[in-house]
Amino acid sequence: MYEKRSFYEAINFGSGGILKVAVIGTGAVGGYYGALLASHGFEVHFLFHSDFEYVLKNGLLIESKDGDFSLESINAYGKPSDMPFCDIAIVALKSTQNHHLSSILPHVVKKKSIVVLLQNGLGVEEEIAKILPKATIIGGLCFLCSNKVGPGHIRHLDYGSIRMAQLSRNEKPAGITDNLRFIADVFKKAGISVYLEKDLGKARWEKLVWNMSYNGMSVVLNATTDQLMNDPASKRLVEEVMMEVISGARACGFELADGFAQQMLAATEKMVAYSPSMKLDFEADRELEINTIYWRPIQTASNNGYEMKTAAVLARQLEYLDRNNRS
Amino acid sequence: MYEKRSFYEAINFGSGGILKVAVIGTGAVGGYYGALLASHGFEVHFLFHSDFEYVLKNGLLIESKDGDFSLESINAYGKPSDMPFCDIAIVALKSTQNHHLSSILPHVVKKKSIVVLLQNGLGVEEEIAKILPKATIIGGLCFLCSNKVGPGHIRHLDYGSIRMAQLSRNEKPAGITDNLRFIADVFKKAGISVYLEKDLGKARWEKLVWNMSYNGMSVVLNATTDQLMNDPASKRLVEEVMMEVISGARACGFELADGFAQQMLAATEKMVAYSPSMKLDFEADRELEINTIYWRPIQTASNNGYEMKTAAVLARQLEYLDRNNRS
Repeated sequence: MYEKRSFYEAINFGSGGILKVAVIGTGAVGGYYGALLASHGFEVHFLFHSDFEYVLKNGLLIESKDGDFSLESINAYGKPSDMPFCDIAIVALKSTQNHHLSSILPHVVKKKSIVVLLQNGLGVEEEIAKILPKATIIGGLCFLCSNKVGPGHIRHLDYGSIRMAQLSRNEKPAGITDNLRFIADVFKKAGISVYLEKDLGKARWEKLVWNMSYNGMSVVLNATTDQLMNDPASKRLVEEVMMEVISGARACGFELADGFAQQMLAATEKMVAYSPSMKLDFEADRELEINTIYWRPIQTASNNGYEMKTAAVLARQLEYLDRNNRS
Repeated sequence: MYEKRSFYEAINFGSGGILKVAVIGTGAVGGYYGALLASHGFEVHFLFHSDFEYVLKNGLLIESKDGDFSLESINAYGKPSDMPFCDIAIVALKSTQNHHLSSILPHVVKKKSIVVLLQNGLGVEEEIAKILPKATIIGGLCFLCSNKVGPGHIRHLDYGSIRMAQLSRNEKPAGITDNLRFIADVFKKAGISVYLEKDLGKARWEKLVWNMSYNGMSVVLNATTDQLMNDPASKRLVEEVMMEVISGARACGFELADGFAQQMLAATEKMVAYSPSMKLDFEADRELEINTIYWRPIQTASNNGYEMKTAAVLARQLEYLDRNNRS
C-alpha cells in the first residue's frame, strides 16, 4: 500500500491542497463522472463544446437512478487555453475527436499530472502517450449507461463502475501502481466503483469482446442488446464476433479465458434492454467510433497474423451507414 | 437445329395445336411473362393466390416501359386442381413458397410437359426434379425489373431477358437441348429475349455472383445498387462477396472467368438506381429468399471445402431482419 499523505504531497497538488481535475469533453461520460467528483468536493474544471454558453448560465443537471443532482455554478470553459493546469485530466471526448487532444492537453496538463482516459476502443492511451511522452496515463473502461439528453443535461440510466489500468511504457504490463491506486481513491471518494487491472492491453481486449460484437450489430440491425440476444441468428453472430475478438487478443499475446465469451453473453442476457454507445451515437447523428473500436483491433490482430473477418464486415457496413447517416 | 414442326408434334400439344402454358405464381415475374405469352396467342392458365377474385372480374394490367397492355379476360384459377394439364408449366413463385409445389405441379404437368422455373437461388430445379423425377426441367434466370404494385397490376420497369439452361440428370451439363431451343422459341415469339446456356449449374453460380452481393447488402444497408456502388466501404464489401461466390463456384467445379466480378461491378455501375428483388420483398413484408440465395450456395461450397464467411454474415443478418420485419 502507498502512503496516502506523502503521495498526495508528492504529486504537488494545487494551492490549498484541493485537487484540481480537468474534464476534457463534458458529455454523457465526462459530465457524469466530473459532476460526481465536483459534488464530492473536488475542484473540477469542465471543458465544453456546444453547451458552453448554456452551462455558464444554467449549470449542469444530472438525472441519475442513484438520485438527481445539479451543479448550479461550475467552472465551465469554452476553450482549453482558458483552463488552469490540473492534477488530473479526465479525457472523455468521443475517440473520433482525439485529433483535438494535441492542442488541448498542453493547456491543462503539467509535469506531474495524471491523465485518465475514459474512452472505448484500442490504442487510445497510446495516442495520448505520443502527445505527452512522459505523462502517467491511465485507461478507464466504463461500464456506464448514460446519455446526454440536452444542453448541460445528462441522464444516468444504469451502472457506473470503471475498470482502470495504467499504460505501460515498456513491453510488460504496468501492474497496480501507486498512481493507479491514487486515481482509484479519488474516484471512490466520489462514490464511483473502481476495479484495478494489472494489464491495460488485456483489459482493453476484454472490453472489445463486448464492444466489437454488440456495438456494430446494434447499429447495423437497429437492435438493442435484448433483441440481439433473443434471435438465434443475431445471437450466433454476436457469439462469432466474440470468438473472433478472443482469437485476435490471443494472437496479440493476451490470454483471455476460455469461457470469457459465454460469461459476456450470460451477463448481457441478464442486463436490461440496452442501447450500446455506438447506437446512441448513430441515433444522435454523431460520428461512429469505427476506427478505435473496429479498425485498430482488426489491424493489430492482422499484424499478428489473425484476420477478424466478421468484424471487418461489420466495420465496412458501419462506415457506409455512418457516412449516409451524417450526409 | 431441331425440326420445329416435328418437334411441336412430338411433344403432343393440346387439342387444336394451341400450346397450353400454366403460370404457377402470377406475380411480378410470372404475371409479366405470362401476360406477354397470352397477348401473343398462347393459351395461358394463371394460378393466383390472393388476387384471384379481383382478377376474375378485372383481368390483368401490365404497365410496361415497352408499352402498357391489359388482358381483360384471362384463364384465372384460385386452386391448382381446377387447372388443365399444360404443355409448359412456368413456375414463378417466390422460392420461399416452393413447399407448395408438390401439391400444385401434379395438377398441371403431364408426362411430356416442360417445367420452366423462373426463380433465384441455387438448387431450385433439383427441388422440382424430386417431385417430377422424369420431367424436363429448365431453369430461367431473369434479368428483369418489375413489381406487383396492386391486385392484378404489374409494373415492368426495365430489362426482361432470360438466360435459360436445362437441368442435367447426370454429372455432365445438359447442353443446348431440343427442348431448351423449343422453350426459347416460345418465349421469343412473345418478344422476350432469351439466351441459352449449356450448363445450368454454372449459370446459377454466375447469377449468384450478383444476387449474393447486392440482394443481401441492399436489405441490410437499406440501399439501392447505385448507393452501394457510390460508397467505397459498401462497394468493397460487394466486391468481397463477389470474389467469395466465385471461389465457392470454383470449389464446386464451375470455372467462372477471372474478370467476372469486375464485369458485374461495371455493368451494375451503368444500371439505373435499382432495388434488388430481396429489397422489394423486404419492403413488402414478404419472406426473404435467404435459403435459396444464401444458405444453399454457402452449404454447397462448404461441402466442397470452401467457407463463404462474408456471405454467411449477411445471411444471418438477413434472418434477423426478416424475422423482425414480419413479426
